Amino acid sequence: MTDVERKLQERGLSVPVAAKSLADYVPVNRAGNLIFVSGQLPVRDGKLAFEGIVGKDLDVETAKQAAVLCALNILGQLKAAVPSLDRVRCVRLGGFVQSQAGFKDHAAVVNGASELIVFAFGEKGRHARAAVGCSALPLGAAVEVEAIFEVESD
Amino acid sequence: MTDVERKLQERGLSVPVAAKSLADYVPVNRAGNLIFVSGQLPVRDGKLAFEGIVGKDLDVETAKQAAVLCALNILGQLKAAVPSLDRVRCVRLGGFVQSQAGFKDHAAVVNGASELIVFAFGEKGRHARAAVGCSALPLGAAVEVEAIFEVESD
Amino acid sequence: MTDVERKLQERGLSVPVAAKSLADYVPVNRAGNLIFVSGQLPVRDGKLAFEGIVGKDLDVETAKQAAVLCALNILGQLKAAVPSLDRVRCVRLGGFVQSQAGFKDHAAVVNGASELIVFAFGEKGRHARAAVGCSALPLGAAVEVEAIFEVESD
Repeated sequence: MTDVERKLQERGLSVPVAAKSLADYVPVNRAGNLIFVSGQLPVRDGKLAFEGIVGKDLDVETAKQAAVLCALNILGQLKAAVPSLDRVRCVRLGGFVQSQAGFKDHAAVVNGASELIVFAFGEKGRHARAAVGCSALPLGAAVEVEAIFEVESD
Repeated sequence: MTDVERKLQERGLSVPVAAKSLADYVPVNRAGNLIFVSGQLPVRDGKLAFEGIVGKDLDVETAKQAAVLCALNILGQLKAAVPSLDRVRCVRLGGFVQSQAGFKDHAAVVNGASELIVFAFGEKGRHARAAVGCSALPLGAAVEVEAIFEVESD
Repeated sequence: MTDVERKLQERGLSVPVAAKSLADYVPVNRAGNLIFVSGQLPVRDGKLAFEGIVGKDLDVETAKQAAVLCALNILGQLKAAVPSLDRVRCVRLGGFVQSQAGFKDHAAVVNGASELIVFAFGEKGRHARAAVGCSALPLGAAVEVEAIFEVESD
Protein backbone atom coordinates (compact mmCIF):
# COMPACT_ATOMS: atom_id res chain seq x y z
CA MET A 1 0.00 0.00 0.00
CA THR A 2 1.28 3.46 -0.87
CA ASP A 3 1.70 6.28 1.65
CA VAL A 4 -1.06 8.13 -0.18
CA GLU A 5 -3.49 5.26 0.37
CA ARG A 6 -2.44 4.87 4.00
CA LYS A 7 -3.17 8.54 4.50
CA LEU A 8 -6.64 8.21 2.96
CA GLN A 9 -7.31 5.25 5.24
CA GLU A 10 -6.99 7.59 8.24
CA ARG A 11 -10.25 9.14 7.04
CA GLY A 12 -11.82 5.81 6.18
CA LEU A 13 -11.34 6.50 2.48
CA SER A 14 -9.88 4.28 -0.22
CA VAL A 15 -8.90 4.71 -3.84
CA PRO A 16 -11.76 3.37 -5.99
CA VAL A 17 -11.33 1.10 -8.97
CA ALA A 18 -10.89 3.28 -12.06
CA ALA A 19 -14.15 3.89 -13.92
CA LYS A 20 -14.39 3.48 -17.68
CA SER A 21 -14.52 6.59 -19.86
CA LEU A 22 -17.94 7.81 -21.00
CA ALA A 23 -16.76 7.96 -24.58
CA ASP A 24 -13.96 7.67 -27.09
CA TYR A 25 -11.08 8.95 -24.97
CA VAL A 26 -8.69 7.68 -22.32
CA PRO A 27 -8.92 8.51 -18.62
CA VAL A 28 -5.20 9.22 -18.26
CA ASN A 29 -2.62 10.37 -20.78
CA ARG A 30 1.06 11.02 -20.22
CA ALA A 31 3.18 13.54 -22.12
CA GLY A 32 6.74 13.81 -20.93
CA ASN A 33 6.54 13.96 -17.15
CA LEU A 34 3.02 15.39 -17.15
CA ILE A 35 0.00 13.17 -16.63
CA PHE A 36 -3.35 14.53 -17.79
CA VAL A 37 -6.35 13.01 -15.99
CA SER A 38 -9.69 13.36 -17.80
CA GLY A 39 -12.56 15.16 -16.09
CA GLN A 40 -13.97 12.91 -13.36
CA LEU A 41 -17.57 12.96 -12.20
CA PRO A 42 -18.88 12.20 -8.68
CA VAL A 43 -19.61 8.58 -9.60
CA ARG A 44 -19.63 5.79 -6.99
CA ASP A 45 -19.96 2.09 -7.90
CA GLY A 46 -20.81 3.06 -11.45
CA LYS A 47 -23.64 5.41 -10.49
CA LEU A 48 -23.72 9.20 -10.40
CA ALA A 49 -23.94 10.04 -6.68
CA PHE A 50 -24.38 13.84 -6.83
CA GLU A 51 -26.66 15.37 -9.45
CA GLY A 52 -28.14 18.82 -9.96
CA ILE A 53 -27.51 22.51 -9.50
CA VAL A 54 -25.34 23.49 -6.53
CA GLY A 55 -27.00 26.22 -4.47
CA LYS A 56 -30.43 24.99 -5.57
CA ASP A 57 -30.66 21.18 -5.65
CA LEU A 58 -27.62 20.66 -3.38
CA ASP A 59 -26.03 22.85 -0.73
CA VAL A 60 -22.34 23.75 -0.59
CA GLU A 61 -21.47 21.10 2.03
CA THR A 62 -23.04 18.33 -0.06
CA ALA A 63 -21.37 19.63 -3.22
CA LYS A 64 -18.05 19.57 -1.40
CA GLN A 65 -18.55 15.85 -0.82
CA ALA A 66 -19.16 15.52 -4.56
CA ALA A 67 -15.79 17.21 -5.16
CA VAL A 68 -14.13 14.79 -2.71
CA LEU A 69 -15.57 11.90 -4.72
CA CYS A 70 -14.29 13.42 -7.98
CA ALA A 71 -10.83 13.66 -6.41
CA LEU A 72 -10.96 10.03 -5.28
CA ASN A 73 -11.90 9.01 -8.82
CA ILE A 74 -8.93 11.00 -10.11
CA LEU A 75 -6.74 8.95 -7.77
CA GLY A 76 -8.42 5.78 -9.00
CA GLN A 77 -7.51 6.67 -12.59
CA LEU A 78 -3.98 7.62 -11.61
CA LYS A 79 -3.43 4.42 -9.60
CA ALA A 80 -4.39 2.33 -12.64
CA ALA A 81 -1.91 4.25 -14.79
CA VAL A 82 1.26 4.87 -12.78
CA PRO A 83 3.61 2.49 -10.94
CA SER A 84 3.04 4.24 -7.59
CA LEU A 85 0.90 7.08 -6.27
CA ASP A 86 3.89 7.98 -4.10
CA ARG A 87 5.93 8.97 -7.15
CA VAL A 88 3.61 11.69 -8.49
CA ARG A 89 2.76 15.21 -7.41
CA CYS A 90 -0.29 17.30 -8.24
CA VAL A 91 0.27 20.21 -10.63
CA ARG A 92 -3.22 21.58 -11.32
CA LEU A 93 -6.88 20.88 -10.68
CA GLY A 94 -9.70 22.23 -12.84
CA GLY A 95 -13.00 22.34 -10.96
CA PHE A 96 -16.38 22.75 -12.64
CA VAL A 97 -19.46 23.40 -10.49
CA GLN A 98 -22.96 23.19 -11.94
CA SER A 99 -24.39 26.50 -10.78
CA GLN A 100 -26.43 29.53 -11.81
CA ALA A 101 -25.99 33.30 -11.70
CA GLY A 102 -25.89 34.47 -8.09
CA PHE A 103 -23.99 31.43 -6.81
CA LYS A 104 -20.58 32.53 -5.52
CA ASP A 105 -19.17 29.64 -3.47
CA HIS A 106 -17.27 27.73 -6.16
CA ALA A 107 -14.03 27.97 -4.18
CA ALA A 108 -15.60 26.27 -1.15
CA VAL A 109 -17.03 23.48 -3.29
CA VAL A 110 -13.88 22.70 -5.26
CA ASN A 111 -11.94 22.91 -2.03
CA GLY A 112 -13.40 19.48 -1.26
CA ALA A 113 -11.11 18.11 -3.97
CA SER A 114 -8.17 20.38 -3.13
CA GLU A 115 -8.19 19.50 0.58
CA LEU A 116 -8.31 15.80 -0.14
CA ILE A 117 -5.35 15.97 -2.51
CA VAL A 118 -3.31 18.07 -0.08
CA PHE A 119 -4.27 15.74 2.79
CA ALA A 120 -3.27 12.63 0.84
CA PHE A 121 -0.09 13.93 -0.82
CA GLY A 122 1.14 16.50 1.71
CA GLU A 123 3.58 19.00 0.16
CA LYS A 124 3.34 17.11 -3.13
CA GLY A 125 -0.39 17.74 -3.20
CA ARG A 126 -0.15 21.52 -3.40
CA HIS A 127 -1.53 22.51 -6.80
CA ALA A 128 -2.61 25.40 -8.98
CA ARG A 129 -6.32 25.57 -9.65
CA ALA A 130 -9.16 27.12 -11.61
CA ALA A 131 -12.74 26.85 -10.32
CA VAL A 132 -15.66 28.00 -12.45
CA GLY A 133 -19.43 27.64 -12.76
CA CYS A 134 -21.01 25.58 -15.52
CA SER A 135 -24.59 25.80 -16.75
CA ALA A 136 -24.69 22.01 -17.14
CA LEU A 137 -22.35 19.03 -16.75
CA PRO A 138 -22.23 15.50 -18.22
CA LEU A 139 -24.95 13.18 -16.81
CA GLY A 140 -26.26 16.16 -14.85
CA ALA A 141 -23.36 15.93 -12.39
CA ALA A 142 -23.11 18.61 -9.71
CA VAL A 143 -19.31 18.77 -9.97
CA GLU A 144 -16.54 17.69 -12.36
CA VAL A 145 -12.82 17.83 -11.61
CA GLU A 146 -9.88 17.26 -13.97
CA ALA A 147 -6.20 17.15 -13.02
CA ILE A 148 -2.63 17.36 -14.16
CA PHE A 149 0.00 15.45 -12.17
CA GLU A 150 3.75 15.24 -12.62
CA VAL A 151 5.80 12.07 -12.41
CA GLU A 152 8.81 12.65 -10.21
CA SER A 153 11.99 12.10 -12.12
CA ASP A 154 14.54 9.71 -10.60
CA MET B 1 0.00 14.14 -48.06
CA THR B 2 0.28 12.89 -44.50
CA ASP B 3 -1.19 9.60 -43.26
CA VAL B 4 -3.55 11.65 -41.11
CA GLU B 5 -4.92 13.47 -44.16
CA ARG B 6 -5.20 10.24 -46.15
CA LYS B 7 -7.21 8.76 -43.30
CA LEU B 8 -9.57 11.77 -43.26
CA GLN B 9 -10.00 11.41 -47.03
CA GLU B 10 -11.57 7.98 -46.43
CA ARG B 11 -14.49 9.87 -44.92
CA GLY B 12 -14.46 12.57 -47.56
CA LEU B 13 -12.94 15.04 -45.10
CA SER B 14 -9.96 17.32 -45.50
CA VAL B 15 -7.95 19.58 -43.25
CA PRO B 16 -9.22 23.15 -43.67
CA VAL B 17 -7.02 26.19 -44.13
CA ALA B 18 -6.24 27.60 -40.68
CA ALA B 19 -8.62 30.38 -39.64
CA LYS B 20 -7.34 33.61 -38.18
CA SER B 21 -7.71 34.21 -34.44
CA LEU B 22 -10.67 36.28 -33.25
CA ALA B 23 -8.40 38.50 -31.23
CA ASP B 24 -4.95 39.26 -29.91
CA TYR B 25 -3.62 35.74 -29.48
CA VAL B 26 -2.08 33.00 -31.58
CA PRO B 27 -3.89 29.85 -32.71
CA VAL B 28 -1.01 27.53 -31.82
CA ASN B 29 1.76 27.87 -29.28
CA ARG B 30 4.56 25.43 -28.54
CA ALA B 31 6.25 24.98 -25.15
CA GLY B 32 8.85 22.24 -25.06
CA ASN B 33 7.26 19.28 -26.82
CA LEU B 34 3.71 20.39 -26.02
CA ILE B 35 1.63 22.27 -28.57
CA PHE B 36 -1.32 24.25 -27.23
CA VAL B 37 -4.09 24.83 -29.79
CA SER B 38 -6.45 27.70 -29.03
CA GLY B 39 -10.17 27.01 -28.65
CA GLN B 40 -11.65 26.37 -32.11
CA LEU B 41 -15.22 27.13 -33.09
CA PRO B 42 -17.38 25.26 -35.63
CA VAL B 43 -16.49 27.71 -38.38
CA ARG B 44 -16.52 26.73 -42.07
CA ASP B 45 -15.27 29.01 -44.85
CA GLY B 46 -15.05 31.86 -42.39
CA LYS B 47 -18.64 31.54 -41.19
CA LEU B 48 -19.99 30.06 -37.97
CA ALA B 49 -21.79 26.89 -39.09
CA PHE B 50 -23.38 25.77 -35.80
CA GLU B 51 -24.94 28.33 -33.49
CA GLY B 52 -27.18 28.10 -30.45
CA ILE B 53 -28.02 26.02 -27.41
CA VAL B 54 -27.52 22.27 -27.74
CA GLY B 55 -30.60 20.37 -26.61
CA LYS B 56 -32.79 23.32 -27.55
CA ASP B 57 -31.71 24.97 -30.83
CA LEU B 58 -29.70 21.94 -32.02
CA ASP B 59 -30.00 18.22 -31.22
CA VAL B 60 -27.12 16.03 -30.06
CA GLU B 61 -26.41 14.57 -33.52
CA THR B 62 -26.13 18.02 -35.08
CA ALA B 63 -23.96 19.26 -32.21
CA LYS B 64 -21.70 16.25 -32.73
CA GLN B 65 -21.13 17.48 -36.29
CA ALA B 66 -20.20 20.86 -34.82
CA ALA B 67 -17.61 19.09 -32.67
CA VAL B 68 -16.25 17.29 -35.73
CA LEU B 69 -15.82 20.67 -37.43
CA CYS B 70 -14.03 22.07 -34.36
CA ALA B 71 -11.66 19.09 -34.49
CA LEU B 72 -10.97 19.66 -38.21
CA ASN B 73 -10.19 23.29 -37.44
CA ILE B 74 -7.79 22.14 -34.73
CA LEU B 75 -6.03 20.04 -37.38
CA GLY B 76 -6.00 23.04 -39.73
CA GLN B 77 -4.23 25.11 -37.09
CA LEU B 78 -1.80 22.30 -36.31
CA LYS B 79 -0.99 21.68 -39.98
CA ALA B 80 -0.05 25.33 -40.41
CA ALA B 81 2.26 25.13 -37.39
CA VAL B 82 4.09 21.79 -37.47
CA PRO B 83 6.25 20.13 -40.12
CA SER B 84 3.99 17.08 -40.33
CA LEU B 85 0.71 15.95 -38.79
CA ASP B 86 2.23 12.48 -38.70
CA ARG B 87 4.77 13.53 -36.09
CA VAL B 88 2.34 14.66 -33.39
CA ARG B 89 0.05 12.84 -30.97
CA CYS B 90 -3.00 14.16 -29.15
CA VAL B 91 -2.61 14.67 -25.39
CA ARG B 92 -5.85 16.33 -24.30
CA LEU B 93 -9.07 17.83 -25.67
CA GLY B 94 -11.20 20.37 -23.80
CA GLY B 95 -14.79 20.38 -25.04
CA PHE B 96 -17.27 23.16 -24.27
CA VAL B 97 -20.93 22.67 -25.16
CA GLN B 98 -23.40 25.56 -25.06
CA SER B 99 -26.15 24.03 -22.94
CA GLN B 100 -28.54 24.66 -20.08
CA ALA B 101 -29.45 22.91 -16.82
CA GLY B 102 -31.05 19.56 -17.56
CA PHE B 103 -28.85 18.82 -20.57
CA LYS B 104 -26.72 15.75 -19.85
CA ASP B 105 -25.25 14.56 -23.16
CA HIS B 106 -22.00 16.54 -23.26
CA ALA B 107 -19.97 13.36 -23.63
CA ALA B 108 -21.86 12.33 -26.76
CA VAL B 109 -21.42 15.79 -28.31
CA VAL B 110 -17.71 16.16 -27.62
CA ASN B 111 -17.25 12.59 -28.80
CA GLY B 112 -17.66 13.99 -32.31
CA ALA B 113 -14.26 15.57 -31.88
CA SER B 114 -12.73 12.66 -29.97
CA GLU B 115 -13.80 10.06 -32.53
CA LEU B 116 -12.43 12.12 -35.39
CA ILE B 117 -9.04 12.54 -33.72
CA VAL B 118 -8.83 8.82 -32.86
CA PHE B 119 -9.93 7.89 -36.40
CA ALA B 120 -7.33 10.17 -38.00
CA PHE B 121 -4.39 9.48 -35.68
CA GLY B 122 -5.09 5.91 -34.54
CA GLU B 123 -3.22 5.01 -31.32
CA LYS B 124 -1.61 8.46 -31.37
CA GLY B 125 -5.06 10.04 -31.26
CA ARG B 126 -6.01 8.63 -27.86
CA HIS B 127 -6.33 11.60 -25.51
CA ALA B 128 -7.44 12.74 -22.06
CA ARG B 129 -10.50 14.96 -22.05
CA ALA B 130 -12.78 17.25 -20.11
CA ALA B 131 -16.27 18.02 -21.42
CA VAL B 132 -18.43 20.66 -19.75
CA GLY B 133 -21.49 22.82 -20.38
CA CYS B 134 -21.20 26.55 -21.00
CA SER B 135 -23.95 29.15 -20.64
CA ALA B 136 -22.64 30.96 -23.73
CA LEU B 137 -19.75 30.69 -26.21
CA PRO B 138 -17.96 33.15 -28.53
CA LEU B 139 -20.07 34.21 -31.55
CA GLY B 140 -22.92 32.14 -30.11
CA ALA B 141 -21.19 28.89 -31.15
CA ALA B 142 -22.82 25.61 -30.14
CA VAL B 143 -19.47 23.97 -29.38
CA GLU B 144 -15.83 24.97 -28.81
CA VAL B 145 -12.89 22.56 -28.60
CA GLU B 146 -9.30 23.26 -27.56
CA ALA B 147 -6.39 20.82 -27.67
CA ILE B 148 -2.92 19.94 -26.48
CA PHE B 149 -0.73 17.85 -28.78
CA GLU B 150 2.78 16.51 -28.27
CA VAL B 151 5.52 16.59 -30.86
CA GLU B 152 7.18 13.19 -31.08
CA SER B 153 10.83 13.41 -30.22
CA ASP B 154 13.29 11.93 -32.70
CA MET C 1 12.62 46.86 -12.33
CA THR C 2 11.99 44.37 -15.13
CA ASP C 3 11.34 45.33 -18.75
CA VAL C 4 7.84 43.95 -18.33
CA GLU C 5 7.13 46.32 -15.44
CA ARG C 6 8.68 49.28 -17.29
CA LYS C 7 6.38 48.54 -20.19
CA LEU C 8 3.31 48.47 -17.91
CA GLN C 9 4.41 51.80 -16.44
CA GLU C 10 3.95 53.39 -19.89
CA ARG C 11 0.23 52.82 -19.35
CA GLY C 12 0.32 53.87 -15.72
CA LEU C 13 -0.04 50.26 -14.61
CA SER C 14 1.94 48.30 -12.07
CA VAL C 15 2.16 44.68 -10.98
CA PRO C 16 0.03 44.28 -7.85
CA VAL C 17 1.11 42.42 -4.74
CA ALA C 18 0.09 38.79 -5.12
CA ALA C 19 -3.27 38.03 -3.52
CA LYS C 20 -3.75 35.01 -1.28
CA SER C 21 -5.61 31.99 -2.64
CA LEU C 22 -9.30 31.67 -1.81
CA ALA C 23 -8.79 28.15 -0.60
CA ASP C 24 -6.52 25.17 -0.15
CA TYR C 25 -4.36 25.54 -3.23
CA VAL C 26 -1.36 27.53 -4.38
CA PRO C 27 -1.49 30.48 -6.79
CA VAL C 28 1.47 29.30 -8.86
CA ASN C 29 2.87 25.84 -9.47
CA ARG C 30 5.84 24.86 -11.60
CA ALA C 31 6.26 21.55 -13.43
CA GLY C 32 9.40 21.29 -15.52
CA ASN C 33 9.61 24.58 -17.40
CA LEU C 34 5.87 25.20 -17.27
CA ILE C 35 4.35 27.48 -14.67
CA PHE C 36 0.65 27.06 -13.97
CA VAL C 37 -1.04 30.18 -12.57
CA SER C 38 -4.34 29.59 -10.75
CA GLY C 39 -7.48 31.32 -12.00
CA GLN C 40 -7.31 35.00 -11.04
CA LEU C 41 -10.33 37.18 -10.33
CA PRO C 42 -10.69 40.95 -10.98
CA VAL C 43 -9.72 41.76 -7.41
CA ARG C 44 -8.10 45.09 -6.45
CA ASP C 45 -6.76 45.83 -2.96
CA GLY C 46 -8.38 42.66 -1.68
CA LYS C 47 -11.85 43.55 -2.99
CA LEU C 48 -13.70 42.20 -6.02
CA ALA C 49 -13.83 45.15 -8.42
CA PHE C 50 -16.03 43.72 -11.20
CA GLU C 51 -19.06 41.64 -10.31
CA GLY C 52 -22.04 40.36 -12.27
CA ILE C 53 -23.18 39.14 -15.65
CA VAL C 54 -21.39 40.59 -18.67
CA GLY C 55 -23.85 41.87 -21.25
CA LYS C 56 -26.40 42.53 -18.51
CA ASP C 57 -24.83 44.01 -15.34
CA LEU C 58 -21.64 45.16 -17.14
CA ASP C 59 -20.97 46.10 -20.76
CA VAL C 60 -18.17 44.65 -22.87
CA GLU C 61 -15.82 47.62 -22.35
CA THR C 62 -16.15 47.40 -18.57
CA ALA C 63 -15.69 43.63 -18.64
CA LYS C 64 -12.54 44.13 -20.71
CA GLN C 65 -11.15 46.22 -17.82
CA ALA C 66 -11.99 43.32 -15.53
CA ALA C 67 -9.93 41.05 -17.79
CA VAL C 68 -7.03 43.54 -17.67
CA LEU C 69 -7.17 43.38 -13.87
CA CYS C 70 -7.17 39.56 -13.93
CA ALA C 71 -4.07 39.70 -16.15
CA LEU C 72 -2.33 42.10 -13.76
CA ASN C 73 -3.12 39.74 -10.91
CA ILE C 74 -1.61 36.88 -12.93
CA LEU C 75 1.56 38.96 -13.23
CA GLY C 76 1.44 39.65 -9.49
CA GLN C 77 1.37 35.93 -8.77
CA LEU C 78 4.12 35.25 -11.28
CA LYS C 79 6.36 38.02 -9.92
CA ALA C 80 6.13 36.50 -6.44
CA ALA C 81 7.13 33.10 -7.80
CA VAL C 82 9.85 33.57 -10.42
CA PRO C 83 13.25 35.28 -10.28
CA SER C 84 12.35 37.70 -13.10
CA LEU C 85 9.30 38.46 -15.23
CA ASP C 86 11.73 39.00 -18.07
CA ARG C 87 12.67 35.32 -18.12
CA VAL C 88 9.21 33.89 -18.78
CA ARG C 89 6.94 33.75 -21.81
CA CYS C 90 3.19 33.26 -21.95
CA VAL C 91 2.00 29.90 -23.30
CA ARG C 92 -1.76 29.91 -22.80
CA LEU C 93 -4.57 31.93 -21.24
CA GLY C 94 -7.92 30.49 -20.22
CA GLY C 95 -10.62 33.17 -20.05
CA PHE C 96 -13.98 32.67 -18.33
CA VAL C 97 -16.69 35.29 -18.78
CA GLN C 98 -19.84 35.27 -16.64
CA SER C 99 -22.50 35.47 -19.33
CA GLN C 100 -25.82 34.08 -20.48
CA ALA C 101 -27.22 32.61 -23.70
CA GLY C 102 -27.25 35.24 -26.43
CA PHE C 103 -24.00 36.88 -25.32
CA LYS C 104 -21.38 36.47 -28.05
CA ASP C 105 -18.52 38.86 -27.29
CA HIS C 106 -16.30 36.64 -25.13
CA ALA C 107 -13.34 37.19 -27.45
CA ALA C 108 -13.53 40.97 -27.02
CA VAL C 109 -13.73 40.67 -23.23
CA VAL C 110 -10.86 38.22 -22.79
CA ASN C 111 -8.86 40.30 -25.24
CA GLY C 112 -8.42 42.76 -22.37
CA ALA C 113 -6.11 40.18 -20.79
CA SER C 114 -4.51 39.08 -24.04
CA GLU C 115 -3.67 42.61 -25.16
CA LEU C 116 -2.10 43.45 -21.83
CA ILE C 117 0.11 40.36 -21.86
CA VAL C 118 1.19 41.01 -25.46
CA PHE C 119 1.81 44.69 -24.67
CA ALA C 120 3.91 43.84 -21.60
CA PHE C 121 5.87 40.87 -22.97
CA GLY C 122 6.04 41.66 -26.69
CA GLU C 123 6.80 38.58 -28.80
CA LYS C 124 7.08 36.53 -25.61
CA GLY C 125 3.52 37.48 -24.74
CA ARG C 126 1.91 35.77 -27.74
CA HIS C 127 -0.18 32.91 -26.35
CA ALA C 128 -2.75 30.27 -27.20
CA ARG C 129 -6.16 30.86 -25.66
CA ALA C 130 -9.61 29.51 -24.92
CA ALA C 131 -12.45 31.90 -24.04
CA VAL C 132 -15.80 30.58 -22.85
CA GLY C 133 -18.94 31.69 -21.05
CA CYS C 134 -19.70 30.62 -17.49
CA SER C 135 -23.09 30.65 -15.78
CA ALA C 136 -21.43 31.81 -12.54
CA LEU C 137 -17.94 32.50 -11.19
CA PRO C 138 -16.34 32.55 -7.71
CA LEU C 139 -17.47 35.55 -5.59
CA GLY C 140 -19.77 36.55 -8.43
CA ALA C 141 -16.81 37.78 -10.51
CA ALA C 142 -17.52 39.00 -14.04
CA VAL C 143 -14.33 37.45 -15.42
CA GLU C 144 -11.70 34.89 -14.39
CA VAL C 145 -8.41 34.26 -16.21
CA GLU C 146 -5.88 31.48 -15.66
CA ALA C 147 -2.50 31.12 -17.35
CA ILE C 148 0.40 28.88 -18.26
CA PHE C 149 3.82 30.46 -18.67
CA GLU C 150 7.14 28.92 -19.64
CA VAL C 151 10.45 29.65 -17.97
CA GLU C 152 13.08 30.34 -20.58
CA SER C 153 15.90 27.86 -20.36
CA ASP C 154 19.41 29.24 -20.17
